[in-house]
Amino acid sequence: MRTNKVRDIWNAGGNVVNGWVASASSYTAEIMAAQGFDSVGVDLQHGMIDFDQAVSMLQAISVQDATPLARVPWNDPTWIMKTLDAGAMGLVCPMVNTAEEAAQFVGASHYPPLGFRSFANVRGPLYAGADYKARSRELIVTLAMIETKTALDNIEEIVKVEGLDAVYIGPSDLAIGLGHEPVGDPTEPEVLEAIAHIRRVSEAAGVKPTIHTAGGDHARRCFGEGFRLCTLANEIRFIIDGAQLQIGKARA
Amino acid sequence: MRTNKVRDIWNAGGNVVNGWVASASSYTAEIMAAQGFDSVGVDLQHGMIDFDQAVSMLQAISVQDATPLARVPWNDPTWIMKTLDAGAMGLVCPMVNTAEEAAQFVGASHYPPLGFRSFANVRGPLYAGADYKARSRELIVTLAMIETKTALDNIEEIVKVEGLDAVYIGPSDLAIGLGHEPVGDPTEPEVLEAIAHIRRVSEAAGVKPTIHTAGGDHARRCFGEGFRLCTLANEIRFIIDGAQLQIGKARA
Amino acid sequence: MRTNKVRDIWNAGGNVVNGWVASASSYTAEIMAAQGFDSVGVDLQHGMIDFDQAVSMLQAISVQDATPLARVPWNDPTWIMKTLDAGAMGLVCPMVNTAEEAAQFVGASHYPPLGFRSFANVRGPLYAGADYKARSRELIVTLAMIETKTALDNIEEIVKVEGLDAVYIGPSDLAIGLGHEPVGDPTEPEVLEAIAHIRRVSEAAGVKPTIHTAGGDHARRCFGEGFRLCTLANEIRFIIDGAQLQIGKARA
Amino acid sequence: MRTNKVRDIWNAGGNVVNGWVASASSYTAEIMAAQGFDSVGVDLQHGMIDFDQAVSMLQAISVQDATPLARVPWNDPTWIMKTLDAGAMGLVCPMVNTAEEAAQFVGASHYPPLGFRSFANVRGPLYAGADYKARSRELIVTLAMIETKTALDNIEEIVKVEGLDAVYIGPSDLAIGLGHEPVGDPTEPEVLEAIAHIRRVSEAAGVKPTIHTAGGDHARRCFGEGFRLCTLANEIRFIIDGAQLQIGKARA
Amino acid sequence: MRTNKVRDIWNAGGNVVNGWVASASSYTAEIMAAQGFDSVGVDLQHGMIDFDQAVSMLQAISVQDATPLARVPWNDPTWIMKTLDAGAMGLVCPMVNTAEEAAQFVGASHYPPLGFRSFANVRGPLYAGADYKARSRELIVTLAMIETKTALDNIEEIVKVEGLDAVYIGPSDLAIGLGHEPVGDPTEPEVLEAIAHIRRVSEAAGVKPTIHTAGGDHARRCFGEGFRLCTLANEIRFIIDGAQLQIGKARA
Amino acid sequence: MRTNKVRDIWNAGGNVVNGWVASASSYTAEIMAAQGFDSVGVDLQHGMIDFDQAVSMLQAISVQDATPLARVPWNDPTWIMKTLDAGAMGLVCPMVNTAEEAAQFVGASHYPPLGFRSFANVRGPLYAGADYKARSRELIVTLAMIETKTALDNIEEIVKVEGLDAVYIGPSDLAIGLGHEPVGDPTEPEVLEAIAHIRRVSEAAGVKPTIHTAGGDHARRCFGEGFRLCTLANEIRFIIDGAQLQIGKARA
Repeated sequence: MRTNKVRDIWNAGGNVVNGWVASASSYTAEIMAAQGFDSVGVDLQHGMIDFDQAVSMLQAISVQDATPLARVPWNDPTWIMKTLDAGAMGLVCPMVNTAEEAAQFVGASHYPPLGFRSFANVRGPLYAGADYKARSRELIVTLAMIETKTALDNIEEIVKVEGLDAVYIGPSDLAIGLGHEPVGDPTEPEVLEAIAHIRRVSEAAGVKPTIHTAGGDHARRCFGEGFRLCTLANEIRFIIDGAQLQIGKARA
Repeated sequence: MRTNKVRDIWNAGGNVVNGWVASASSYTAEIMAAQGFDSVGVDLQHGMIDFDQAVSMLQAISVQDATPLARVPWNDPTWIMKTLDAGAMGLVCPMVNTAEEAAQFVGASHYPPLGFRSFANVRGPLYAGADYKARSRELIVTLAMIETKTALDNIEEIVKVEGLDAVYIGPSDLAIGLGHEPVGDPTEPEVLEAIAHIRRVSEAAGVKPTIHTAGGDHARRCFGEGFRLCTLANEIRFIIDGAQLQIGKARA
Repeated sequence: MRTNKVRDIWNAGGNVVNGWVASASSYTAEIMAAQGFDSVGVDLQHGMIDFDQAVSMLQAISVQDATPLARVPWNDPTWIMKTLDAGAMGLVCPMVNTAEEAAQFVGASHYPPLGFRSFANVRGPLYAGADYKARSRELIVTLAMIETKTALDNIEEIVKVEGLDAVYIGPSDLAIGLGHEPVGDPTEPEVLEAIAHIRRVSEAAGVKPTIHTAGGDHARRCFGEGFRLCTLANEIRFIIDGAQLQIGKARA
Repeated sequence: MRTNKVRDIWNAGGNVVNGWVASASSYTAEIMAAQGFDSVGVDLQHGMIDFDQAVSMLQAISVQDATPLARVPWNDPTWIMKTLDAGAMGLVCPMVNTAEEAAQFVGASHYPPLGFRSFANVRGPLYAGADYKARSRELIVTLAMIETKTALDNIEEIVKVEGLDAVYIGPSDLAIGLGHEPVGDPTEPEVLEAIAHIRRVSEAAGVKPTIHTAGGDHARRCFGEGFRLCTLANEIRFIIDGAQLQIGKARA
Repeated sequence: MRTNKVRDIWNAGGNVVNGWVASASSYTAEIMAAQGFDSVGVDLQHGMIDFDQAVSMLQAISVQDATPLARVPWNDPTWIMKTLDAGAMGLVCPMVNTAEEAAQFVGASHYPPLGFRSFANVRGPLYAGADYKARSRELIVTLAMIETKTALDNIEEIVKVEGLDAVYIGPSDLAIGLGHEPVGDPTEPEVLEAIAHIRRVSEAAGVKPTIHTAGGDHARRCFGEGFRLCTLANEIRFIIDGAQLQIGKARA
Repeated sequence: MRTNKVRDIWNAGGNVVNGWVASASSYTAEIMAAQGFDSVGVDLQHGMIDFDQAVSMLQAISVQDATPLARVPWNDPTWIMKTLDAGAMGLVCPMVNTAEEAAQFVGASHYPPLGFRSFANVRGPLYAGADYKARSRELIVTLAMIETKTALDNIEEIVKVEGLDAVYIGPSDLAIGLGHEPVGDPTEPEVLEAIAHIRRVSEAAGVKPTIHTAGGDHARRCFGEGFRLCTLANEIRFIIDGAQLQIGKARA
């Protein structure tokens, strides 16, 4: 029934505004999904979220129009397959450092012949319709995180992996990997050049460059540079900013 | 070991900036508690929160300096006693419409002879020390919500109830009760006059006037009028505001 | 955005086929909601389901087209208001024995002036749109369970209660109340006559007669008699029937 | 299939050694049930336990030979009926102060004609067999807590309530009610005399006297006085005692 | 105390009728276990089930006579050891493609010297008695899933792995692996021949052939061919079939 | 704000008394943390505990003075990084058999350049202050479990791994690995000599020798031999001991 808005927007030449949820609450997930994001990702890596909570969060996002995504905690077929069964229509996979690791990620995300995902009718058909399996190659988007020096060195090979839809830059870890402090919106020339390099190599290979940003201003700049999906911080950031702003006003 | 910052601030003549949590996440609760609120309340009435989740949220708030409070879903001894056992150091009770209902609320919140709370050593002593029972009359603060026409009519009697520490105005429900639309920061003269009346009657009786506000600006005005505790919206409000702000910037 | 299919079908003169979920699983709830029921109810009375689980189950039902309903465990404002906040678009309330109890149920289910429900923007607007409060009188359907001898005696008064949309017959408890064994699809003349009497009195008062049935055949008969909503057993019944059928075949 | 060991032991003239669980863990509940208690109660009043957790805890106790009991948080039909549906074979009800309250407790615990419990086949038949309803009058034991001055004054009337199986003394609350400090194994003459009085009145009425004790020594004394069921502290007490003992040895 | 019915039935020359649970509910798990299955498996691979839920589900199955099994999500020692600690008396392991992978699975499932399972007294002794460790080689059954072309090619080596009790065919994935559509009860000659080949090779090696079936009729045929354990779909299948059947009748 | 008491005590030349929690309850975790342990570990390996429960347990321990630790279920970066994000200030890693495995464990536990932990501000700064990342090399303690024959053979290489703070002996598994029965407080000369050998090699390399003990007496002996952290059984042991002791007294 439903398609993947990330794929649809990309196919139409547009850019995706992605939300990110780090607290284990299906209510919060639905609230985020109702604010106008194109997609919302459940962060199983750095979020305080476990698999069972991710199930209800992916359901909650699906009540609204945003497409449900997830970041798995590691490049591990257990988490990749379970999260897809739970109804994620796209995955962000951390710490993809080589073409082999990228192929492992894509393989676990797709049915044969492209991959080796194990078959079952779980939440995919409930979300996307009875022909989910037939359409799953197009429905599921795969985003490999590029966030280490090794990944930077291997980027030319990584983007050649068949079936990989996008690379997703994690600026903080990439900065650490290059010997700098983690900054959500980096200004170090070496980091900026690395980000630009990854973007250019991806574009050239027909793989979408995407990135985790520090917020809307950062995202708008990234869209301007050619990034095709930007995550706008997460809901914990909004809570911290909102609480500190309102406390400041109350105590003024 | 620990005291109740709400009581301490009141005793010192100060005003309490209170946070409010509506999503069932101990991580979110701790994040809120770390932002500088004097106290943070777990909303068991309108929050999507159940008792077991409230337990871990009250624990999480207690990791930080903010004093843990809770709003019970109804004036019901089951919820009042369980929530106090779970370590809430103060309770907001909805829909207190008569002096009898206020006495029922206070009674369920305190041990004999003041009340009829059932005794057990649960989380109170873990938070406040082995002498929790002996100090509980001072440790536990009780805030009765005034949010209907009936309560407004009975306010003079309600504030006379022994052991009631504060009245807590819910502007939205009070507005509805007076025939107006619910507004977090009301401007209707009839609603404003009702709020001022409740505040004046409370002050005269030595009961603290407190209020649910729409945010920091509203709270600052209320503090100026004499309110002694203001809740600054909740974390869902911060998420909605933050998400819409950042999406707007990203799409600008 | 969305309307209540129960109300819509009734307004169009049709009959509602309702599903019922008794196990605490948002996955099961969504599976049930995807099978073609007009509405699916989360059974907080006899189901092994708690409030926090009901939240994610009501969200899960809302991913699909079925309208989410709930049966509260008792005629208690705590449960009624929390369940409505969680997004139930209609409530079945057990053991309504008098007009006063029916009025208490309806009162807790609606905002003033019809009732005394406490206001908050929680999941209602996420499901039904920003004008949820304005439309809530029409959106929310209230079904009072008639399942005792006392209720049978008071049925003429109960159906006159303003705002009550339907009476919901529980055949098993009603049979027990009349001194017979509990049977999901009763054949005792006294029980059948009681059921018919309740239906006729309700119809005459403009209140919808509805009923818990033992399955599809029973429901079809009830629709033929004039019942306007029938619940078809629950998912536990389907599991038991399916398991025993398949085990029998495997061992044949 | 199974009977209630509490009833069986009582019918055989014996005494019941009861365990008590206050933490929300089905693993802990099963561990307790495997240590040799005749019955194990899930404490929904002062335990940090919610309904959904009680369900899995009652299941876990049922893996072992101990009969599953529960203490409900309050004399409230919602909790009484849900807990029985979840498979508790006996209930301890707090704060029963009058014969009317005792009758309310018994009524919610039994099917008509004795009571007004709502019918459903939930976990009762899974534990006790298909004839659970027919045998439920004998299967379910009801224990009313006597723990206030008012209850003490009304004890002669309380024990006359039809269907009440036992009174259960809470020494700490009873001590508070009589103006003394709460002590698990009281030595105040006034408290001891009150306890003895309740025991004698119960025995005379054919109602079993039962009591919450501070541990095995206290229980053995109570059995000697005629008490027929003793709860031996709870698992939290065992943890505290064990931890402090072992830490002391390690640091010696 | 208890033995493993799967092993007992096999030792007696019989066939095992196995149930399968995919929703995270200890109530549903117990319901399934009470219907007459010899064993019931908790599906941690394609079920919407996490570890903590599996614990209470394995407990719930153990209330009844069926032996508790589990399918782990992947051939990963974390899940294998945790699930055994939680009381599974047998494991189905997905995607075992080589003898080395089979040895890894068996190794994680058994204590030295056969394997490398880490020792602890957790739920095993609670279920099977204090001599659980001494008997664990016999108590625990290991079933390796054969569901890819690679596994088919390596079947002769896989069945030689010491300690492997059974191979478990997943017809849907096997069909996909051979280039066909996934069908629960396959009719493609190539798939049927592969299934028969696996069965014959297993039988010859003294390893039990077992299979996931589409239901009772399919299972009866498989038993006739020599399969020694058949899983009869899962409870979600029963719900879907039951719901659609009853809706059809109600709307007829 | 806070430091790691394990590190502080070690730096001061003292010994750490560590508690251990195996049941999934944040209440139990806080109770344990309040009894006087220097640190309390959440056992994700053999405890019946999942990640989401570990989050609230680590928060609960942090309400009290004990430093929160965790044992991960396996040497797997998913669990290591998630558990550190959740606020564990030290990790015990099972089955570390080679220097390479020890390096993998340390690498996943620390940020570059020492390791490859992925960066995020989650619960670390909430517990230890805004400079958590800068101090994390000192804040986080890593304890590698030595519990197999292979590990014993490789101990000289394992203790040379940069960044490894301690080896943690699991006497039961080590005994099994050497061909003996698992005993918490071993007396087999071969096992005792292996333990002493590991201790001496660790001490010589400047790595802390630490050990899982059967209780306080065993721990005191180990401290006397030079062990620097001893775990005193777990809370399940205290429950079993306490229950059996009290039942024995009650039945005496």
